[in-house]
Amino acid sequence: MKKLINDPQNVVVESLAGLGSAHPDILKVCFDPNYVIRADAPVQGKVALVSGGGSGHEPMHAGYVGKGMLDAACPGQVFTSPTPDQIEAATQAVHGGAGVLHIVKNYTGDVMNFEMAAELCAVQGIEVQAVVINDDVAVEDSLYTAGRRGVGTTVLAEKICGAAAERGYDLARVTDICRKVNANGRSMGMALTSCTVPAAGKPTFELPDDQMEMGIGIHGEPGRARMSLTPARDITTRLAETVIADLPFQRGDRVIALVNGMGGTPLIELYLVYNELEQICHGKGLTIARRLVGNYITSLEMAGCSITLLKADDELLSLWDAPVFAAGLRWGM
Amino acid sequence: MKKLINDPQNVVVESLAGLGSAHPDILKVCFDPNYVIRADAPVQGKVALVSGGGSGHEPMHAGYVGKGMLDAACPGQVFTSPTPDQIEAATQAVHGGAGVLHIVKNYTGDVMNFEMAAELCAVQGIEVQAVVINDDVAVEDSLYTAGRRGVGTTVLAEKICGAAAERGYDLARVTDICRKVNANGRSMGMALTSCTVPAAGKPTFELPDDQMEMGIGIHGEPGRARMSLTPARDITTRLAETVIADLPFQRGDRVIALVNGMGGTPLIELYLVYNELEQICHGKGLTIARRLVGNYITSLEMAGCSITLLKADDELLSLWDAPVFAAGLRWGM
Repeated sequence: MKKLINDPQNVVVESLAGLGSAHPDILKVCFDPNYVIRADAPVQGKVALVSGGGSGHEPMHAGYVGKGMLDAACPGQVFTSPTPDQIEAATQAVHGGAGVLHIVKNYTGDVMNFEMAAELCAVQGIEVQAVVINDDVAVEDSLYTAGRRGVGTTVLAEKICGAAAERGYDLARVTDICRKVNANGRSMGMALTSCTVPAAGKPTFELPDDQMEMGIGIHGEPGRARMSLTPARDITTRLAETVIADLPFQRGDRVIALVNGMGGTPLIELYLVYNELEQICHGKGLTIARRLVGNYITSLEMAGCSITLLKADDELLSLWDAPVFAAGLRWGM
Repeated sequence: MKKLINDPQNVVVESLAGLGSAHPDILKVCFDPNYVIRADAPVQGKVALVSGGGSGHEPMHAGYVGKGMLDAACPGQVFTSPTPDQIEAATQAVHGGAGVLHIVKNYTGDVMNFEMAAELCAVQGIEVQAVVINDDVAVEDSLYTAGRRGVGTTVLAEKICGAAAERGYDLARVTDICRKVNANGRSMGMALTSCTVPAAGKPTFELPDDQMEMGIGIHGEPGRARMSLTPARDITTRLAETVIADLPFQRGDRVIALVNGMGGTPLIELYLVYNELEQICHGKGLTIARRLVGNYITSLEMAGCSITLLKADDELLSLWDAPVFAAGLRWGM
């Protein structure tokens, strides 16, 4: 295992400590239980957004904590759900009197623990709504999931709902917008290589030198098919056509596109994939109105990519364009 | 070779095409010869900044083209210097009547070709100054270099000089600031794995599973020492102490720090390295006044990191804090 770490058991807390000292203007890291909140939390009178999940997907979610996006993130151990007490403490810390929205990726442990935390918060008089993101078209059920997995649409939902909350929308309206994003977003990913969970010390799966895994999950869960490696044009076409056919996206639709790297894929390749995606969307009559190209929801050092498309109307585009101040998002998005 | 590419010969142009279609609000990509310019180039009356070098280091340099940073970038083939005609065309395209600064990383081919381009431009009446960045403390001469290599300080120089040019400073003053950044910046890197140049199809070098290369160059050039893999704390200490001793940085200095990933290192590890660096700097009496943590000057999918420290006074910090609108820089820097 070749990693820039000290003790495999301490990777998450040591990395969080670095995040906290790097960005004191944006966020604050709390330990035992571990969570990350906006530097100015709680913001009185604003709906608070809380997300979380296993670590190893950075910059998601802690990199999306900041003005205009999340109020709090709850990082679990690598590829492990955060515990109810983490989520409860984070929810309490950011509650500003206008209620809290939990944005939850659809993995069994995450859903269960967010539900338990919401119940604990309700007892304390905090109004909590939850939206479960389940945008991955690759498989219906998987290793850690009943139903579809939650992947790239989560990033878009956090940005858009963060803007909605910042505008002063109430909890019902922010929740509705989050449901709308989930209803209109679809994703699919693929892997060229496996990743290695630090505590495991060996690759999660084996993938021969000439093979790739289509429909991979962000924890290395099996996808749809293992097949011979093909050119980027073919890979992008397979991902995009499956995503487009699922909603389905239709001629004339405007979309927000995310070409996401799994952590070990260099930017030169991701922009090449974006170039293919542009042409495919153009051919189908879809307009990419906005986009992100980079590593946004990763699987440690896995090589590969995912594609997310979100059908966007004027409301979603306007919220997308609102300012954001988070460590994990780029100026030039 | 596992990469998201089509034809190894077309990686650079296809990736540039994607960059251009992704960011039309920021930049424009020109082909034959290939260069990338600000969307609003030329900006009349402003000193123009041009950089460039081999591709494979993304987001450097094309990701740093935009308001507040570079006016143009000249991407060569992967790990290959741009040609004089590329640099000449880019310089002409962005010249706004106030002269042009070439920011050149110290590699023999880059230096020679930027010099030839500057001579060609001078004949046309364009005033060109050049600053060669040579901040890598690892080795004195190397495979492609007489003298020290240019690495991470280049990113900081492009940001700071871009802000100076945006403020309306004249060519002499922007050039002086660039020299000051180079004089006060020092870097060193290390690799956990090699990278594979697409046209070569096989790893640039071999590195056993239990070994790392300290002092690696950004093209995989040999460094100072190959040694057994150690914890991140030891690696960071070796890099930081060599960097600090070289200038030398002294108790009471304020620094801008860059913890840079080589392309295949996940953010969770880079923040862990930043956490170590913070403690080392604190112990030495250095204050990290500003920082970047992420993949900024990469070597394709190489795993590893580099550390850059820049001794910064009020002038440099003020320029650092100025707004920038480039695809490769983060909001929350």
